[in-house]
Amino acid sequence: MTEITALDFESLLSADARERRRTELDGGGASQPEIRISLSSGQPDPHSMPIDDLSTAVGTVLAGDRAALLYGARDGYHPLRQVVADKTNRMETLQITDDDVIITTGASQAIGLASQAFVDRDSTILIDEASWGSLVLRGFGGNPIPVRWDDRGPIIADIEQGIAGLEPGQRIRLFYTIPNFQNPMGFTASLERRKQVVQLAQRHGFLILEDDAYFELRFEGEQLPSYYELDQSRSHVVRTGTFSKILGAGVRLGWAIGPPDILQAMMLYKFDLGSSPFMSRIVAEYMGTHLQEHVAELRGVYRGKRDAMLEALQAGLGGVATWNRPDGGFFIWVKLPDGVDSTEVERESMARGVDIWPGSAFRMDGAEDGHVRLAYSFETPEKIREGVAIFSEVVHDLHK
Amino acid sequence: MTEITALDFESLLSADARERRRTELDGGGASQPEIRISLSSGQPDPHSMPIDDLSTAVGTVLAGDRAALLYGARDGYHPLRQVVADKTNRMETLQITDDDVIITTGASQAIGLASQAFVDRDSTILIDEASWGSLVLRGFGGNPIPVRWDDRGPIIADIEQGIAGLEPGQRIRLFYTIPNFQNPMGFTASLERRKQVVQLAQRHGFLILEDDAYFELRFEGEQLPSYYELDQSRSHVVRTGTFSKILGAGVRLGWAIGPPDILQAMMLYKFDLGSSPFMSRIVAEYMGTHLQEHVAELRGVYRGKRDAMLEALQAGLGGVATWNRPDGGFFIWVKLPDGVDSTEVERESMARGVDIWPGSAFRMDGAEDGHVRLAYSFETPEKIREGVAIFSEVVHDLHK
Repeated sequence: MTEITALDFESLLSADARERRRTELDGGGASQPEIRISLSSGQPDPHSMPIDDLSTAVGTVLAGDRAALLYGARDGYHPLRQVVADKTNRMETLQITDDDVIITTGASQAIGLASQAFVDRDSTILIDEASWGSLVLRGFGGNPIPVRWDDRGPIIADIEQGIAGLEPGQRIRLFYTIPNFQNPMGFTASLERRKQVVQLAQRHGFLILEDDAYFELRFEGEQLPSYYELDQSRSHVVRTGTFSKILGAGVRLGWAIGPPDILQAMMLYKFDLGSSPFMSRIVAEYMGTHLQEHVAELRGVYRGKRDAMLEALQAGLGGVATWNRPDGGFFIWVKLPDGVDSTEVERESMARGVDIWPGSAFRMDGAEDGHVRLAYSFETPEKIREGVAIFSEVVHDLHK
Repeated sequence: MTEITALDFESLLSADARERRRTELDGGGASQPEIRISLSSGQPDPHSMPIDDLSTAVGTVLAGDRAALLYGARDGYHPLRQVVADKTNRMETLQITDDDVIITTGASQAIGLASQAFVDRDSTILIDEASWGSLVLRGFGGNPIPVRWDDRGPIIADIEQGIAGLEPGQRIRLFYTIPNFQNPMGFTASLERRKQVVQLAQRHGFLILEDDAYFELRFEGEQLPSYYELDQSRSHVVRTGTFSKILGAGVRLGWAIGPPDILQAMMLYKFDLGSSPFMSRIVAEYMGTHLQEHVAELRGVYRGKRDAMLEALQAGLGGVATWNRPDGGFFIWVKLPDGVDSTEVERESMARGVDIWPGSAFRMDGAEDGHVRLAYSFETPEKIREGVAIFSEVVHDLHK
């Protein structure tokens, strides 16, 4: 008998995995109190989900050719790629084809694939100062340069200074940015800023990783051209989108639009043999006919929820904190009064049954930044009012 | 106006992506002739798919709590992890819990995650001489040591010689192996060989990546304990499985069973925020009640197809080529007559409308090995007979 030896697990890890384990911030949530009201996550509105129409779509798919239950194309179910191309061409001044689209398991997978294809551990990257993308990009380490935002988008001087400060031989690999209803900051980049960013990318040869998860959910103001549209070279931008916000996150289907060589490089890391052909057929079936009407309905729903949250904030924190009024998307970015710590606000809100996300969670360095992200997407207007009232009490209590 | 400059794409690639592009073998398929009969891919039998019962399961899920359309747990829908644990404990001498299971987008994603977590570009790994896993592991480069098989499994001397030949300071990271109805070779590792492999892993501190995609589909012979079961240290084996073969590949759901630290390291690379909660609920709903009866039905179906293929081979190539008689799974491994090249057989078969896979496709170095993998899983027995007859003609024609 060989004696039973436990494996020296640590020593078997790949160098990258060892580094990831070292740098990964604690996801938290070990012993959470009971949450009654969630103002934390970007979950879509459950009551707007088109259950009956989806059910009909499933019936159509299951009555079909059974290919839904076979392996499909690795880069996605062709008619779903076509749905994305058609939607893009209908809503924007673009003429893309299904060849410009790959289907991924949520936009988050697409962002992971692009990071693997383009970011080395010593790469210099630009990223919005607070960004959902930090949750993915932190694991890639590298040398992140945070780009501050004001209410018109990324501050160009920060990008220029980042470039000017590079060592000889160093370069920027990519700028990860969320142009519309930025997550978590809620602002939208102006046309002028977008043009400036594209010019810098073209001049200095970096990629723009444009995370446009909320593009379709603009309920106010004028739609602006994407970085992808503005880059007439068609080589500097890969743009990700998702069905998570306009249908349901549980389908786990998103896409990337970009130049073929970029999409091919991303595909090098898609080991899953393609996102679900079954789920893709259901979404293509539903979205092929219902997309426009459903998105129109959602815009009304989220506008109403945003307004409920704005009113509740005014009632609870008017004159104490400040916040923005997003033109779309899911989030309001609340600047806390000076001296109030966002992680303390989080802890105390959670103790009172309301979940929020502190700004620090969205920063590459995890530093306190005196902000809180409130999501109005998931709860009903009534619950939003109740939750914001509790959150406001917490801020008042900590601001003594 | 800035002049429009196309991006220097190559220089932006991560070092790993650049290496992958260099080493990736051409997937082929650029200008394929029309394929009438596919004996190439591991697609499951379309006629055995339980469309009506799945439809009922979807109805139940859609009538449920709408969480199916929300984000779920990153490591998988809890009741589906429980379905996998229950199935494992019922079919084997094991007592695992849902904590020992993560849900992935097919077993292929799990294999990709494990490779990312444990294989560096300069790592030495062991792999079955011909293996489906080559399609994933080739991209990781490293220093693969092929382990030859006979009809009782991996040849232990090859592993021992691989270990003996290591430079000082070098070690084996993992052994990727498919114990049951090996893909593509169709053989099953004997109990004795399994025990020897586990002893070597324990003695020399390497991981066994046990790809057990066909475990449930044994239609003959005695079931053998898995490497996972034999490793009483519970630290040397991560074992992957899939719903692709026992339900449908289009659901893209599989799993990994293993020690928590190994599963956590794999999760570092799962950027997709979890495999589809919607799809997972459908599969959990269906599999929770129908798994045993459905698998029993499938065993009969695939046994019948195997027999049809064996008969057709005997009729077409008896005395000319040799092959094995698998106890389960999807594949027969045909040894071609001396001097007949498998890629030529592939080309000529395809020209006559029959798709097969040459053995070289499964080798890390892509070298010709005089074998062909025939899959009996997808086509009807009639088509199998027709396809094997055409394939046999091709072999005869090339053997002149």
